[in-house]
Amino acid sequence: MYLMVEMFQPPRGTRDFLPEEMLKRNWVLDRIREVYEVYGFEPLGTPAFESWELLKVKSGDDIVNQIYYFRDKSDRELGLRFEWTASLARVVSSHRELQMPFKRYAVGPVWRYENPSEARYREFWQADADIVGVSDHIADAEVLAVAVDCLKGLGFEGFVIKLNDRRILEAFIELVGMPKENIPEIIRAVDKLSKIGKDGVLKELSKCVQNEESALKLLDLISVKASAQGVLKHATDCVKEKPEGVKGCAALKSILDYSKSFGYYEYIIVDLTLARGLDYYTGPVFEVSAKEYEDCGSIAGGGRYDEIIGLFGGESTPATGVSLGIERIVSLLEKKGGFEGLRLGVEVLVSPVSESVKPIAIEIAQSLRRAGIPTTLDLLGRGLSKQLDFAHRRGIRKVVIIGERELKDKCVTLRDMATGDQQKVEIDELPKMLAPLTGR
Amino acid sequence: MYLMVEMFQPPRGTRDFLPEEMLKRNWVLDRIREVYEVYGFEPLGTPAFESWELLKVKSGDDIVNQIYYFRDKSDRELGLRFEWTASLARVVSSHRELQMPFKRYAVGPVWRYENPSEARYREFWQADADIVGVSDHIADAEVLAVAVDCLKGLGFEGFVIKLNDRRILEAFIELVGMPKENIPEIIRAVDKLSKIGKDGVLKELSKCVQNEESALKLLDLISVKASAQGVLKHATDCVKEKPEGVKGCAALKSILDYSKSFGYYEYIIVDLTLARGLDYYTGPVFEVSAKEYEDCGSIAGGGRYDEIIGLFGGESTPATGVSLGIERIVSLLEKKGGFEGLRLGVEVLVSPVSESVKPIAIEIAQSLRRAGIPTTLDLLGRGLSKQLDFAHRRGIRKVVIIGERELKDKCVTLRDMATGDQQKVEIDELPKMLAPLTGR
Repeated sequence: MYLMVEMFQPPRGTRDFLPEEMLKRNWVLDRIREVYEVYGFEPLGTPAFESWELLKVKSGDDIVNQIYYFRDKSDRELGLRFEWTASLARVVSSHRELQMPFKRYAVGPVWRYENPSEARYREFWQADADIVGVSDHIADAEVLAVAVDCLKGLGFEGFVIKLNDRRILEAFIELVGMPKENIPEIIRAVDKLSKIGKDGVLKELSKCVQNEESALKLLDLISVKASAQGVLKHATDCVKEKPEGVKGCAALKSILDYSKSFGYYEYIIVDLTLARGLDYYTGPVFEVSAKEYEDCGSIAGGGRYDEIIGLFGGESTPATGVSLGIERIVSLLEKKGGFEGLRLGVEVLVSPVSESVKPIAIEIAQSLRRAGIPTTLDLLGRGLSKQLDFAHRRGIRKVVIIGERELKDKCVTLRDMATGDQQKVEIDELPKMLAPLTGR
Repeated sequence: MYLMVEMFQPPRGTRDFLPEEMLKRNWVLDRIREVYEVYGFEPLGTPAFESWELLKVKSGDDIVNQIYYFRDKSDRELGLRFEWTASLARVVSSHRELQMPFKRYAVGPVWRYENPSEARYREFWQADADIVGVSDHIADAEVLAVAVDCLKGLGFEGFVIKLNDRRILEAFIELVGMPKENIPEIIRAVDKLSKIGKDGVLKELSKCVQNEESALKLLDLISVKASAQGVLKHATDCVKEKPEGVKGCAALKSILDYSKSFGYYEYIIVDLTLARGLDYYTGPVFEVSAKEYEDCGSIAGGGRYDEIIGLFGGESTPATGVSLGIERIVSLLEKKGGFEGLRLGVEVLVSPVSESVKPIAIEIAQSLRRAGIPTTLDLLGRGLSKQLDFAHRRGIRKVVIIGERELKDKCVTLRDMATGDQQKVEIDELPKMLAPLTGR
């Protein structure tokens, strides 16, 4: 059979994760799940694909164009999820029995047909935590808190939390006299400020706004830098005639207040240029980056979307949430050495030195495994030096050498791979001696 | 905006898992991952979709027809994975630097466009463990061992392990004079024996085999019931003229021997009718069911596939593996009450009784969370009785009531939801008092 070379590769834009990498990814995901659960968020499972109609709702053309679209064998129009929010909105709409507040998390891959680059993949993982049913900004403050604590749990120390409110941005857009109906496009243009710079944004804006002067004025007004309270005061002064803008300022004040009790006030800056790309945000929006790696971009982001659930019928339901970007988190942790010292792989190799001791080697491996010690067993009948070489290359810490002579005394040889020290150990003592290698 | 009713539903054949269910599923997946890792299997990550060409290799038409097929925006032909083996084969072929044996696990959803029924979904989860690079049957014995220990770890006690070897079945097919070129179809027909019965299989066989007598003879020869050793002796006697059949019998003997050391010999029956549906198996095949629930079908299955990796170029590479079916495992655990007594959700509710104590309530919730205690905080400003009602319905065990009067003594009221007992507790003592609710 002839098989094409490209079959060796994962599809363009996707990647394989070999065990060494995957163990780190799983460690990250497990830590995040732990923190989500400790905050009282509970997992919700939804399918990898959703109806095409659902995915299109309130996301914006830029992203809709990136959806992996297909038809099933009954010609249903479907698409792979490109984020978790639409599925959450669907579930909440169809399960009106859910008790509010509904705090759910979801961790898994999402898919977007983007131009792949070193930092951008077509399959990537998002870990989301959302609170549905709470309009008070304590909910926005809590999703920010859980994001910060997830990142702290992973070893990040300082943060920059950019905070804004869509309504303030919209008030500014109206203030400078830009047309209201172009707000979604204007916001999407402003969202690219950190990526494409002021000139880039002006060029984007020129597509939907005739008046360059108003565009310049907008960028000036929202680019003010000061303390969180200082920028908030500037915004409050500017938008005082716009009722929705006033609400936006009150929302930010409320989140700033709550953040003191939650314990992350020190990290917040109010950044009036922060927009977030998705159309559905209705209030506060935020992005978190790691202090030492601010120029690597945000590793968490989110905001409030009070309208999307109501679109599916029934009453309108407030909601807010945060999404952690697993790819970027893993790559920053690599950079800062955050995985060093973690013991993630197999710890013990059980090495029978001859065919005749294989049965007892199996039994010993089984007893260690039952004691929770990550143990592998030589399956290839290799000579001892090859087995030790294997253990060395795999970073295995202890090798249990099963030799005929020691077995007569119900003993084995325990070798420490770091020091090369060997000692004779009774078989029954092994699980206890190796117990420090359990659990992680 | 008008939204269709069907948007409320997950796409046909898929399901949502609400938190109560999802917590159980995650518990199952976490236990399985633990056991896989304790056996020295390591995680491998591959994309949800693969090239269409790859997925088609050696799987058999029945399954290829069930693949969710689509083209990406560059017209690449892709398909959602319908199991994990093709991706594993691709990775091993393209990473010749991998050290053998390569023991990998993979846990996640797979997709097949089947007719949905109560027990059959189009998105379902498989948890696979495979050993690549070992031709000795100690590897088949080890993947069976890890499957049995996963199931034991989940609370299953007795098992029926059906064991066969494809080469024995093929030898029987030749023995009764059926045409060699129809072996894949014949095997797929025999595979349905437990589902459609003898008459059903005869009908299927009549499509590819003219001679009904030989079909009857085949079913008679392979349906013999006896002890594992007894059936193996029968097979050995029958196929002694067929070299491949003889190898099959030797393989089963070897697995039976190893299983004594691994500790699951007692569960094995040799069942010569066991075929497994996929085309790529080349040697031993097996299925595991839970003793009390044998008629619910197998919850794990697998076998040896020594040829598939070689198809991708390079040298041929032996491989064997097992797959746990998460849907059926979860549903059997539900039946046997296996989730009862597990504490999976949030344990503590922090209840501020008025707006003014909210900041301190937040601080207390944060201190409990940092101590690892799954804690939720009232976000809705509800009255105490509503909060207690919420706690009751959610199965929360302890409520920390924050009242102004107690706060003056740096105290709160701790309510036990099971007994209704309340006690006044110093704030600083709370994390220690509630520590038993950490970890699971």
